[in-house]
Amino acid sequence: MKRWEIDAVGRQNLKLNDVEVPKPGPKEVLIKVNAVALNYRDKMVVETGRGLPLTFPFTPGSDLAGEVVGLGQGASRLRLGSNVISTATPDWIDGLRDGTARTPAYQTLGGFYPGVLAEYVAMPEDWFVVAPETLTARQACTLPVAGLTAWFALVERAGVRAGDTVLIPSTGGVALFGLQIAKAHGARVIVCGRPENEDYAKAQGADHFIDASTDWMETVYQLTSDRGVNVALEVIGGKHFGKSIQVTTVGGHVCQIGALDGWDISSAAMPLMLKDITVHGIGTGSRTALERFVRAIDQTRIVPVVNSCYSLPDLPAAFDHLDRGAFGKIVIDVAE
Amino acid sequence: MKRWEIDAVGRQNLKLNDVEVPKPGPKEVLIKVNAVALNYRDKMVVETGRGLPLTFPFTPGSDLAGEVVGLGQGASRLRLGSNVISTATPDWIDGLRDGTARTPAYQTLGGFYPGVLAEYVAMPEDWFVVAPETLTARQACTLPVAGLTAWFALVERAGVRAGDTVLIPSTGGVALFGLQIAKAHGARVIVCGRPENEDYAKAQGADHFIDASTDWMETVYQLTSDRGVNVALEVIGGKHFGKSIQVTTVGGHVCQIGALDGWDISSAAMPLMLKDITVHGIGTGSRTALERFVRAIDQTRIVPVVNSCYSLPDLPAAFDHLDRGAFGKIVIDVAE
Amino acid sequence: MKRWEIDAVGRQNLKLNDVEVPKPGPKEVLIKVNAVALNYRDKMVVETGRGLPLTFPFTPGSDLAGEVVGLGQGASRLRLGSNVISTATPDWIDGLRDGTARTPAYQTLGGFYPGVLAEYVAMPEDWFVVAPETLTARQACTLPVAGLTAWFALVERAGVRAGDTVLIPSTGGVALFGLQIAKAHGARVIVCGRPENEDYAKAQGADHFIDASTDWMETVYQLTSDRGVNVALEVIGGKHFGKSIQVTTVGGHVCQIGALDGWDISSAAMPLMLKDITVHGIGTGSRTALERFVRAIDQTRIVPVVNSCYSLPDLPAAFDHLDRGAFGKIVIDVAE
Amino acid sequence: MKRWEIDAVGRQNLKLNDVEVPKPGPKEVLIKVNAVALNYRDKMVVETGRGLPLTFPFTPGSDLAGEVVGLGQGASRLRLGSNVISTATPDWIDGLRDGTARTPAYQTLGGFYPGVLAEYVAMPEDWFVVAPETLTARQACTLPVAGLTAWFALVERAGVRAGDTVLIPSTGGVALFGLQIAKAHGARVIVCGRPENEDYAKAQGADHFIDASTDWMETVYQLTSDRGVNVALEVIGGKHFGKSIQVTTVGGHVCQIGALDGWDISSAAMPLMLKDITVHGIGTGSRTALERFVRAIDQTRIVPVVNSCYSLPDLPAAFDHLDRGAFGKIVIDVAE
Repeated sequence: MKRWEIDAVGRQNLKLNDVEVPKPGPKEVLIKVNAVALNYRDKMVVETGRGLPLTFPFTPGSDLAGEVVGLGQGASRLRLGSNVISTATPDWIDGLRDGTARTPAYQTLGGFYPGVLAEYVAMPEDWFVVAPETLTARQACTLPVAGLTAWFALVERAGVRAGDTVLIPSTGGVALFGLQIAKAHGARVIVCGRPENEDYAKAQGADHFIDASTDWMETVYQLTSDRGVNVALEVIGGKHFGKSIQVTTVGGHVCQIGALDGWDISSAAMPLMLKDITVHGIGTGSRTALERFVRAIDQTRIVPVVNSCYSLPDLPAAFDHLDRGAFGKIVIDVAE
Repeated sequence: MKRWEIDAVGRQNLKLNDVEVPKPGPKEVLIKVNAVALNYRDKMVVETGRGLPLTFPFTPGSDLAGEVVGLGQGASRLRLGSNVISTATPDWIDGLRDGTARTPAYQTLGGFYPGVLAEYVAMPEDWFVVAPETLTARQACTLPVAGLTAWFALVERAGVRAGDTVLIPSTGGVALFGLQIAKAHGARVIVCGRPENEDYAKAQGADHFIDASTDWMETVYQLTSDRGVNVALEVIGGKHFGKSIQVTTVGGHVCQIGALDGWDISSAAMPLMLKDITVHGIGTGSRTALERFVRAIDQTRIVPVVNSCYSLPDLPAAFDHLDRGAFGKIVIDVAE
Repeated sequence: MKRWEIDAVGRQNLKLNDVEVPKPGPKEVLIKVNAVALNYRDKMVVETGRGLPLTFPFTPGSDLAGEVVGLGQGASRLRLGSNVISTATPDWIDGLRDGTARTPAYQTLGGFYPGVLAEYVAMPEDWFVVAPETLTARQACTLPVAGLTAWFALVERAGVRAGDTVLIPSTGGVALFGLQIAKAHGARVIVCGRPENEDYAKAQGADHFIDASTDWMETVYQLTSDRGVNVALEVIGGKHFGKSIQVTTVGGHVCQIGALDGWDISSAAMPLMLKDITVHGIGTGSRTALERFVRAIDQTRIVPVVNSCYSLPDLPAAFDHLDRGAFGKIVIDVAE
Repeated sequence: MKRWEIDAVGRQNLKLNDVEVPKPGPKEVLIKVNAVALNYRDKMVVETGRGLPLTFPFTPGSDLAGEVVGLGQGASRLRLGSNVISTATPDWIDGLRDGTARTPAYQTLGGFYPGVLAEYVAMPEDWFVVAPETLTARQACTLPVAGLTAWFALVERAGVRAGDTVLIPSTGGVALFGLQIAKAHGARVIVCGRPENEDYAKAQGADHFIDASTDWMETVYQLTSDRGVNVALEVIGGKHFGKSIQVTTVGGHVCQIGALDGWDISSAAMPLMLKDITVHGIGTGSRTALERFVRAIDQTRIVPVVNSCYSLPDLPAAFDHLDRGAFGKIVIDVAE
């Protein structure tokens, strides 16, 4: 079988190796990987290691859709033949995640634990959930990080509901799931982005689209009769965090998810305080949240937006595509 | 009767005038003012106007304890002879406060509405709640801003409970109430401040005191076995906001209350995200929250920390004291 | 103008009288009534008084859609010409409702306060909210009781979300709104009712319909793979309350709303305890909740189910229709 | 070593057998049992089996305090020499507990899993948490069921806070913990019970004591100025459930915990509905909740009320004592 591996940090070290199909240990399952969705983080882990304590050879990638083709001793949670998807932060089952104030949890697939860019993986059965019935593997593999993050933020933390107005200030992977999830709950969605993405965003249900290079805050005020948005999905970070707070309504929610514009976020204190706004720090979600999201997918028929599919050997080209940006997810179709 | 007034912005315009005792209009009450607690904001309103649309002559001050001595037509919520305290944001009764995203609510007593630094005030009966039975007027007048803000943050937003560790990074008015309220709920409290306040803070129940000029974050990690604090009462603002997030535990709460170090708050995004922290913007609280706080005061026998009392004519000296800083509240004893 | 009145309890005392158009007092508005939705309670108030301290002549009815045609002195919250709907429990603005443990709040329009079965009413401006833009008066008048109750239960108390399964054990007024609101949030809905209503319920979006005379609990178990429903809208009461608890999932919600089968509710204690179920007592909702519901109506294009419309003089026939039961609301079209 | 066992249901089958000290398997720990607290359930399991699928010989008992004296292969969560207490529902780690609507989770120690009335037990390390530092084994062993149930109800579900009034209608094991926990959060506590327990209850901090054979509801109304209690700890069940709802305030909480008066609970529907009361079904709590409770114990210095201690061979006498009732917990001191 084939598996992507690095034996040292650096894109030039990325190799598609021939290795033996792994054997599932106790309470593990053998998964035939059908598709893997890429996140920008995967590229960064390969290129910089992100300071993580990687064990080489290291395989990147966290988001797979596959089929259970082998059960290790004592494994009973999943059935042979089941279609499953991975959890990207596998230690987080339910309730609070692991970690301390000094050392937050960072143990992810393809970041601390081995990754999934391979034809087969053998991993603990607890790391997987049954895939939605209504999605193909190419679609389902996008749920573990991009989908779950948007779900956890909007639904499980901010409690979005019908009639709410939701601000989505991007058209990236999490943002598009946010758009679809907000619409599935009856919310009104305002998307900010590059003008060339307006038609795509509206095709996915956006009620309003604002060119992010204009005075978008003023437009948000006008679209909401000054009231502001109930939830802002902050995927930009940096100073944009403070702008999200400014356009959020009294009692509203800002979900801090991404940092495209910088890892330091800042805001004026007064609008946060005078409007009783709640800010939720978001880093994916728990396994039980993913199970709830899977049920929501099947019920609402949300179809993830997949921009392009590459074959397993074409991973480098897929990474290049990630670099250029894309409306929707970039997927490696391993089963192809 | 005497009433402090400015007819233009500026400390030099502050005058103690002789005026007629006001008559309560429909649904108003006449209050004999017994004590007024000062907030730093009062001084700023006098000195700069803070950009508020003040109507001159303007009386500063928001926090009174007094007695109902007259009832306007139709006033029935309060009884003659009742001891009452004011609400500082009187339009906020329960649930969500007023305001829009573009224009947050800023209508406070002594800031937009007339203030209370006077021997008598006539104001809507809806602006007052019955005072605690266990406090003197000098003590009770400290509740409407400093007390309620700490209560609303710790109890009604962050949900502090026994066994939690709470970080109080100051010994100012809100901070000391935070200390007392956290202790009344069985929490462990770490206070950071200037070393000369250690004994005072411990006398108020602080479990630990850290000299704020040392590496206090390291000490917090050590005191909590790295786990961090459950709630940080962020009364400092600026870059301190990010430090509070760093020492807060997974699933913990940061209450953004004050901005002694600057009105722009900033933080690294990753610890906020990886620890699922919730940030609550806090700006006082509702009238029903104040009523709950009054019941808590009477039940727990919390006694507010009053540093010094001045007579009504000595307001300028009291403002000077505010400038110098104080452990506990500065109060004007109007009844003296 | 015409107005229905009783001068003593009893259906035979119900008279359509000619009276003068009322004048709005201070902070009141004059409303031209366009439509009134009937609730079973209206008939009971007329027939038995329900033990309420009614002032005769008494006008029944709580749910109107109308137009603001006059403003009393100082009224500024609504504009002339605005389409509005009433709030049925007008003292409940936001947060907690009034009342004590000993004497719960019972002050409703057409039950303690005068009612709305008239061509014009003059009432406090605080008792109305702006109507949805997307509904006719005949449709909008159904929101204040039936609509808001379902909204408050499902959305503001139980927090329904996409992928949840919701049990609606009836096809009455609140139940049908529950069906529509749950569907608008992406939930799966199981309706139990009389077989002749299956097609109607499915036309409104029900995913499953169970004949309530069969072993419906077994069917619910099977439809949910034993997991049970996330939310049960308990509009039946009596022993049905305990059945709802039996078919509710771990961590699920039962909203106690109605008592068609009896005012005493009962349940086995163990399933409630072992499944960590939350029961919410529901009695309509606050005015701010109604405002959020209006926004949800306009955003999701929910169209209330109106079964039949009668003219104002035909109120007795409409009450007879209520007695017979109906799929959807019975409305008096006052403007006709 | 000694271990109590039954090889068939029935008190006469209860034998204190000599068995070999068990060996901890993979991820198990060997615990030297120091003390075991009895619950009424233990007696019922022995006497009737409660319909559970017991494997004979079966050891009863769920609540131990002990010391880790051996580590199985791969066990790393606990350290040798640590004092620990058991979790009674060991599969419930955090978030939602197991189970379905049709089959709620019932897997408890000494009820489905083997019990702890023995000198040593070997069990999964995940079934234990570190004991409070401030308690003896005799005291600490009372936390897993009686203590955690009261904690989970009052703190994690009802959110008790300072100034709340809490009704404790009994002086049993859960009730006394409820009293102590409520007091530790600054609440006012009303205890109802038999007059001979008044002094004991007041010594534990009860603000008020009502003879349960009098018109206690009227007294609760009077003590709360009709407002009612914020939280009722319903440990009686049956029709008492409805009485708790009647004396609970608007927006208040009723925690359904016990069923001394019957496993069928009933209530009038109207006070539940008109007062927006929330009912929480409570069945112990999660392991993370127990860890939080342990921290609260150490911080607040709550000392559980132990009525009597028996030696391991005296279990039958201890069961007799349970039958007679006791103010506080009955404990088996195994280490004696």
